[in-house]
Amino acid sequence: MDKIHELIIIGAGPAGLAASIYASRYGVEHLIVGSLLGGQITETHEIDNYPGMENMTGFDFSQKWGNHAKKYGVKIITTNVDSIIKNEEIFVLALTNGEVLKTKTLILATGTKRRKLAIAGEKHLLGAGVSYCATCDGFFYKNKTVGIIGGADSAASAALYLSDLCQKVYLIYRGKELRAEPYWKNKLKNCANVEMILETNVVEILGKDHLQKVKLDKAFNGQKELALNGLFIEAGSEPNIEYARGLEMETNEKGYIKISSDGATSVVGVWAAGDITDGSDGFQQVITAAAEGAIAVRSIFKWLKK
Amino acid sequence: MDKIHELIIIGAGPAGLAASIYASRYGVEHLIVGSLLGGQITETHEIDNYPGMENMTGFDFSQKWGNHAKKYGVKIITTNVDSIIKNEEIFVLALTNGEVLKTKTLILATGTKRRKLAIAGEKHLLGAGVSYCATCDGFFYKNKTVGIIGGADSAASAALYLSDLCQKVYLIYRGKELRAEPYWKNKLKNCANVEMILETNVVEILGKDHLQKVKLDKAFNGQKELALNGLFIEAGSEPNIEYARGLEMETNEKGYIKISSDGATSVVGVWAAGDITDGSDGFQQVITAAAEGAIAVRSIFKWLKK
Repeated sequence: MDKIHELIIIGAGPAGLAASIYASRYGVEHLIVGSLLGGQITETHEIDNYPGMENMTGFDFSQKWGNHAKKYGVKIITTNVDSIIKNEEIFVLALTNGEVLKTKTLILATGTKRRKLAIAGEKHLLGAGVSYCATCDGFFYKNKTVGIIGGADSAASAALYLSDLCQKVYLIYRGKELRAEPYWKNKLKNCANVEMILETNVVEILGKDHLQKVKLDKAFNGQKELALNGLFIEAGSEPNIEYARGLEMETNEKGYIKISSDGATSVVGVWAAGDITDGSDGFQQVITAAAEGAIAVRSIFKWLKK
Repeated sequence: MDKIHELIIIGAGPAGLAASIYASRYGVEHLIVGSLLGGQITETHEIDNYPGMENMTGFDFSQKWGNHAKKYGVKIITTNVDSIIKNEEIFVLALTNGEVLKTKTLILATGTKRRKLAIAGEKHLLGAGVSYCATCDGFFYKNKTVGIIGGADSAASAALYLSDLCQKVYLIYRGKELRAEPYWKNKLKNCANVEMILETNVVEILGKDHLQKVKLDKAFNGQKELALNGLFIEAGSEPNIEYARGLEMETNEKGYIKISSDGATSVVGVWAAGDITDGSDGFQQVITAAAEGAIAVRSIFKWLKK
């Protein structure tokens, strides 16, 4: 408990694992604290935009990354961080599993979490028809009718995945046109059982013990109610940053951590990488997250040597 | 010839291939002009710091990337660009193979080229004992005595590669200590046939039809001359930018193209990605080059839609 680590990486997704590989190669003593090896990418149905690794499931992809990092000997503590306190030059971390760790430097790489819609019925019916993860829960709705709320890549990708499994898929989006990559939009065009409900919001989720239907703010086929067996909410993400509030880092207007070109945050000794930051022009991808992880480690290596 | 492309990517290394994969997925019509699929990474003996793809040769690595990009249908023209002229809003490219191409946007991703030492004998004995690529030419010096000039990752990696092949390897570096990653330094410690000659410069390369010896600026084992069968110059790199001089882009003090956070250069319609830029805090890696390629394409996609 009294050991002071050189570096602790919080988060075991692409940014954290890439940082670990680089830290190992640079000889920077470190460990990873993260509850899910691979992070959000594990939930991805298909990943084919990470150059050199064609067409993999998120799960297989995560395994390969985990193996790569572990090969260099890193220890991964499978839990979350509850809080961080800076005590003079040392950071003290309280973990959810009760452990307390100390470190000279930190990389925050905990990415984002799914945004809630905050509408009636959403909380009550979570796990009873309402889900935030199509690849995790889609299988429960085999040959059933499901809805997806959202219009970005994650919503389109979920629609495509569910169209194979389900009888009917409604994609409900408030915008005029999906804002997903053309790659996804083109693929969706070939799915006969996917129907778009555009310029429409879901205002309430209804059901007693299980989801029965949703209420729309605009009639669809003459009806303001739509019967569904399952509802997948893909309404975007927000930075997963609560545990680090005590550090009082600068964030941008959307709450993402501001980093400089070397990944440093406004707090000395703290770097950040991946979807949690405002880096990479806000483009949240595996490739950009990993690059940010590598850049942060090089900066930390130089800083520790001083 | 009169077709105006949406995008031409110049360079077929990691930055260019990543850009192509993203452009294909975004539905941006494009082609690649590049003389070597994989670029400089093809010359790498071992790559193990690109997360998810463990321990590959540069050649195999490049093939995988090339296949990934080609799967989406991109055409690669295997040649170089000689010059670029901006004619109103259109760029006109003259290729080394005689073709002329027109495009609305450009990504410059031609990386760097090896720096010459500019010492006597270097030019004369190139290909006759003097080489800039250990993995390309190392095999000619099997069981012989070779020297390497340089102290960064590429020099250390070359020393390691050559120690397996050659009888004796001298690593000659002007600095007090190698500046390679600790990973490489540790591996080198276990190579009994690699000897360091530190704080020393090679001032002349001697030989009539073939390299015979080099002259040092400081005695080594009492002698200022060192007999060698082969000499590998790993003296760093400089941006490969001559063909684009006509665009008069802003560069930094080392000649690298200045880019903003979305990869745009100072010339409207021109983006740049990879080792040729001042991006990623100057950290020249496969992972950072690829990320820059992806970021540039997203920016171009938005720009073309306007």
